[in-house]
Amino acid sequence: MIVETQTVRFDSLPLDCGETLAPVEVAYETWGELNRARDNAILILHAFSGDAHAAGINREGKPGWWDNMIGPGKGFDTDKYFVICSNVLGGCRGTTGPSSINPATGRPYGRQFPVITIGDMVRLQKKLIDYLGIPRLLSVAGGSMGAMQALEWAVSYPEAVASAIPIAGTARHSAQQIAFNEVGRQAIMADPDWNGGDYYDKNPPARGLAIARMVGHITYMSDESMREKFGRRLRGKEAFGFDFDVDFEVESYLRYRGRQFVERFDANSYLYITKAMDYFDISNGYGSLAAALERTTARFLVISFTSDWLYPTYQSLEIVNALRSRNRDVAFCELSSNYGHDAFLVEVGEQTELIRGFLASTYEKVRG
Amino acid sequence: MIVETQTVRFDSLPLDCGETLAPVEVAYETWGELNRARDNAILILHAFSGDAHAAGINREGKPGWWDNMIGPGKGFDTDKYFVICSNVLGGCRGTTGPSSINPATGRPYGRQFPVITIGDMVRLQKKLIDYLGIPRLLSVAGGSMGAMQALEWAVSYPEAVASAIPIAGTARHSAQQIAFNEVGRQAIMADPDWNGGDYYDKNPPARGLAIARMVGHITYMSDESMREKFGRRLRGKEAFGFDFDVDFEVESYLRYRGRQFVERFDANSYLYITKAMDYFDISNGYGSLAAALERTTARFLVISFTSDWLYPTYQSLEIVNALRSRNRDVAFCELSSNYGHDAFLVEVGEQTELIRGFLASTYEKVRG
Repeated sequence: MIVETQTVRFDSLPLDCGETLAPVEVAYETWGELNRARDNAILILHAFSGDAHAAGINREGKPGWWDNMIGPGKGFDTDKYFVICSNVLGGCRGTTGPSSINPATGRPYGRQFPVITIGDMVRLQKKLIDYLGIPRLLSVAGGSMGAMQALEWAVSYPEAVASAIPIAGTARHSAQQIAFNEVGRQAIMADPDWNGGDYYDKNPPARGLAIARMVGHITYMSDESMREKFGRRLRGKEAFGFDFDVDFEVESYLRYRGRQFVERFDANSYLYITKAMDYFDISNGYGSLAAALERTTARFLVISFTSDWLYPTYQSLEIVNALRSRNRDVAFCELSSNYGHDAFLVEVGEQTELIRGFLASTYEKVRG
Repeated sequence: MIVETQTVRFDSLPLDCGETLAPVEVAYETWGELNRARDNAILILHAFSGDAHAAGINREGKPGWWDNMIGPGKGFDTDKYFVICSNVLGGCRGTTGPSSINPATGRPYGRQFPVITIGDMVRLQKKLIDYLGIPRLLSVAGGSMGAMQALEWAVSYPEAVASAIPIAGTARHSAQQIAFNEVGRQAIMADPDWNGGDYYDKNPPARGLAIARMVGHITYMSDESMREKFGRRLRGKEAFGFDFDVDFEVESYLRYRGRQFVERFDANSYLYITKAMDYFDISNGYGSLAAALERTTARFLVISFTSDWLYPTYQSLEIVNALRSRNRDVAFCELSSNYGHDAFLVEVGEQTELIRGFLASTYEKVRG
């Protein structure tokens, strides 16, 4: 069965910056069936460069980005649960973002698009969930930026979330995380083709975006996984080239990944979404992390990975400790993996077991 | 007393790539006095963006990059030792590099400059040491790329080195280290002002070089030192700007460091020197690390730092273990520091004690 991306349009969305987007569209996919009690829905929250196509095969024959985790009998079991995933606000895969048409000008927003936050993304997702007629989600779950959205859901809409699964995430972006994002933004804005964000009828800033993506890929892998995957192997040569073409496999891989990314991602979305991540600090407005998380009523399953140096375990533990300090229901697991931050996408076995059990017990509790 | 940079010219230098540079100049500085026995000389080897000005104050009033470690009574005690530091081959601070005039064309080499290796850098340093009339160095010492040169000295010229102090270094660049360098190179070459390396009578590729440097700075610091230094502090504002100007201190710092670097460093030197680092694998041609290090006769003091994730302790231990497996004289210290890779430049106290004692005992042995 082919998965289709659907779109719904809302009249307007108020934003944290004070502006209002009108109208606003959301692209989403669903798997499984919403039961009559409407209490088996799970919202999957994608990471930085993800989209609504989280599972199944779409018209282009492409499997979803978390297809190993979502489906019949899988961790997010679509035989039991109704699973939803939507492209985030600011994205470029069907949901309104900087490449969408600005109704005020009839041209793409570009830099006229307002700067958004993780809170804005979640506010739009809430509209989608309301539209789908779901009073309370069984769970909100996601890795990386998906974990930020899961936390935001639990804090902003406690009555609408029975459980949350933040994976490989953080309660706030650290200086190092901001720094890596800033390098990517500067690389894009330094590309003359960026043209102040106004490039939609011209060449996109392909070189800048590719460099931003190369930096990203290094941070998604671990030192060890890069050593295992590439080591010092040369690419298609027996000896050093003594020039600035590709010598090493790892160079070839990064250049390829950079070029490939340009085909599917909008440079302005890169700017806006990284900014939203950098602004993210769930304690904003609450005084402390514990005070923010005190608002939550959801059960939590927090997961981190040993070799993830981009979102290290200590950041997951900050969430866990703050929840525990307010006597909230939280389970924590640090899983062993060499895959670095990418682990949340590839370490299926243990995540499946953890999530399956956690969802089952949450469902039992919800059904009382 | 003002330190002056001196220059010496040699007729030619054969390179690992098969080409020969002719002529070739070396910029160097010295501190202290060479004794009559000519056995108290120490060669300091600088890191990627360093230069010959390692200590003292120069005509521009600038202290040397390791001034806290080199001087009267300091770790490298210039009351006792004759200390030398030269700018590396391929550099842009007085030694022949891509910005030097190519005698064949009368214009700067640019990309006509041959691709060089750490071995080539050391071969040129050996010419300088011969020129200075030093038969055997008491020590070769340096951090980061300086550590690579120290290893190269000990392996290539065992008879000319009584001891070696590789600090925060590696026996070979890993995939992750190559990857970070490759991002920097791609950022420079993506800048239209790079112009195939031919920009010396035009605007240099300032944006690309600044981005490369921003990436570098992140890798030189630790997650913890960035958190302590910047955290999530905003720069000159009370609330988020909701735009793409500077919001956070860390963004301001990186942009400033990027711009500042352009003032003092040549983009082509960035390409050539990072390439030399990436090519570095001291086991090349020997079959194994232990086989390469078996050639050495020097005493070793190997130092690493706990929070250095760019050149992690395990890489220093690879050197130590290989030396031990061949029964070589090696001391190893991992020093506690939050400063990341920068620690070798700033953690003066313990390094001073370690190096002072190591040099004194080496000197005793040499004179013995």
